[in-house]
Amino acid sequence: MRILFSVLLVAFLSACAGTPPLRGTGDLALIIERASGHVTLANTSTRQPYARIGGLGDLSHASAVYSRDGRYAYVFGRDGALSKIDMLEGRMVKRIVQSGNAIGGSISQDGRIVVAQNYKPGGIKAFDAETLELLAEVPAEYAPGQFSKVVGLADSPGNKFVYALFDAGEIWVSDFSDPRRPVTQRFPAGQNPYDGLVTPDGRHFLAGLFGEDGVALLDLWQPEKGSRKILEKYGRGEEKLPVYKMPHLRGWSVAQGKAYLPAIGRHEVLVVDVATWKEVGRIPVRGQPVFVMARPDGRQVWVNFAFPDYGKVDVIDTLKGQVAHQLEPGKGILHMEFTPRGENVWLSARDDHKILIYNTENLTRIGEITADAPSGIFFSSRAQRIGF
Amino acid sequence: MRILFSVLLVAFLSACAGTPPLRGTGDLALIIERASGHVTLANTSTRQPYARIGGLGDLSHASAVYSRDGRYAYVFGRDGALSKIDMLEGRMVKRIVQSGNAIGGSISQDGRIVVAQNYKPGGIKAFDAETLELLAEVPAEYAPGQFSKVVGLADSPGNKFVYALFDAGEIWVSDFSDPRRPVTQRFPAGQNPYDGLVTPDGRHFLAGLFGEDGVALLDLWQPEKGSRKILEKYGRGEEKLPVYKMPHLRGWSVAQGKAYLPAIGRHEVLVVDVATWKEVGRIPVRGQPVFVMARPDGRQVWVNFAFPDYGKVDVIDTLKGQVAHQLEPGKGILHMEFTPRGENVWLSARDDHKILIYNTENLTRIGEITADAPSGIFFSSRAQRIGF
Repeated sequence: MRILFSVLLVAFLSACAGTPPLRGTGDLALIIERASGHVTLANTSTRQPYARIGGLGDLSHASAVYSRDGRYAYVFGRDGALSKIDMLEGRMVKRIVQSGNAIGGSISQDGRIVVAQNYKPGGIKAFDAETLELLAEVPAEYAPGQFSKVVGLADSPGNKFVYALFDAGEIWVSDFSDPRRPVTQRFPAGQNPYDGLVTPDGRHFLAGLFGEDGVALLDLWQPEKGSRKILEKYGRGEEKLPVYKMPHLRGWSVAQGKAYLPAIGRHEVLVVDVATWKEVGRIPVRGQPVFVMARPDGRQVWVNFAFPDYGKVDVIDTLKGQVAHQLEPGKGILHMEFTPRGENVWLSARDDHKILIYNTENLTRIGEITADAPSGIFFSSRAQRIGF
Repeated sequence: MRILFSVLLVAFLSACAGTPPLRGTGDLALIIERASGHVTLANTSTRQPYARIGGLGDLSHASAVYSRDGRYAYVFGRDGALSKIDMLEGRMVKRIVQSGNAIGGSISQDGRIVVAQNYKPGGIKAFDAETLELLAEVPAEYAPGQFSKVVGLADSPGNKFVYALFDAGEIWVSDFSDPRRPVTQRFPAGQNPYDGLVTPDGRHFLAGLFGEDGVALLDLWQPEKGSRKILEKYGRGEEKLPVYKMPHLRGWSVAQGKAYLPAIGRHEVLVVDVATWKEVGRIPVRGQPVFVMARPDGRQVWVNFAFPDYGKVDVIDTLKGQVAHQLEPGKGILHMEFTPRGENVWLSARDDHKILIYNTENLTRIGEITADAPSGIFFSSRAQRIGF
């Protein structure tokens, strides 16, 4: 009896101890380890990892969004898988393979609908955020039997999603007010939109064009006015440069009433006034920009680069309108993520197998986390933001 | 033995059951119940309360800020008390009385320093966010033996805090880079600054003036340029109106490159272009504005009013530049809080003893929560924002 009692005691205590510690979810991070199909979970206050999860499949070009409470991350894999991660229990809750070839996703304003954008078959699919049950799909069939790759998907207020069709040269807006019956509007964009962004207020969608110099712009508050083109022929009359990696567009790049956009193939960041949408400047940088990301307060814009300059990072001072700092933080800098109030930035150094953590004020390195060929870094504070 | 075993079994199970459920902290709310010294905790996803905590003292004009992980709320009471609330365990962790008479507080960019602003004795005090240990204080002694009330305290990047001195007519910036040795700069403001705001990017501090028509402006990126006055004499040549309640200024009121500010005593919202800081419009409303708050996407600005119009709420459409909706949601509408992506707004109806929850898209009421004379509503998403 005494032995049984002891055994039971240990069992009960273990059951209690097995409960993950209580913690807030406002300061969590998910790091994609692209080569091995793992994610590492970390804390942005302690700057330490706390869990590692495998079995996520092909994570090249993977991205993640968060549930509105910050507890769950939804990871979109290159192989069409959608994995739901419990950030508190440090485990995968569910995984579905929703397409053959996917390129990211988004979550609705009310947090109830997770949408994946797919290359093959081209289109978007909407899932219940709780169960991952398929709710609806919008095939990107722009002409009978013709399907386009979908890029640049972003959420917009009113449970809408906006995205571009690479092959069709169009921007589509799908309204999921009724999650099982989305209603889609179509707008012309231009030749081969390769990525898109929604401004941080959710009002404007911009699609970068690969087939021509320029950016397509749609005012989502006044869609009846249609899309228009800005930054037309920004490389006019100049020799075309080889493009080593397509740049990324995301809503982080708006600061102080200006948008900072990567010029395709050129060693420049284009500066656009968001009131007029006219180009107001160009800032020379040390390579072909990939990510151009504003610190949340807009004082700095950080830029990383395509091969062969992917060991460099340039930091633009937006007040001076020029590069103020040139860093060489590590090998293969693929991604950057700012803490929500901007005091730190995390950089993934793929070929150093590390996440590098910097104080943005004095540009000193204040920490690092080991990770296997890390690429994307996604903080839980994204749950609170429009356009991701 | 068998009885003992059963008793122990129950005890162990209770111990396990006593652990609060795992939950994310991204969608939590704290509601001030001013009359009875309570706070009610609620969830913005389920729109239901889940805990109620008493013993917080005098909560008239109380406000709250959040730890960077969203787990803890710091409540600043009118009686100078600072209470630390565990949002997961639903209990008060610690309470200190730090002054005789206080009026809100703020938390540093790195989340390590909680600062209270005090009327009596006038000044600010900085506390360790973990332990509430006093780290430093800055008495608002603007002339030998002369202390001012402090108002409008807001955080700014670089662990700085900005605030106005009502009696001194000054703006002070205290740098807590070394938390125990703050360094303070002083700037002239004008007659009787009554409240302040930092723009959402943390760059500009505005102090509304009560002793004269106008607003003092300080560019925190270029403090060497000093403060200047904007909106001077906005009520010029017109009869002074009695002021029933001082309006509040907070960083929510910036939308689409414009700041929407309450005119003191006047039935108007002033519109200012934040690029030039010139007045670009006035919007007539149905009373003396108290809070003028932009929905996070900036498409709407909601306005509540002082007595006798405090049962009304006007909703401005910022694209049209005019009031688009007039609501009469309840009695004694004291405060409004938007969900971080703007799909809902919570209103406190003090004299109805309810929190009213609206869908901002179609202005329908979608829920309510009973509370005892509720005033301030504070969502955990504030943890991620600059200038609160």
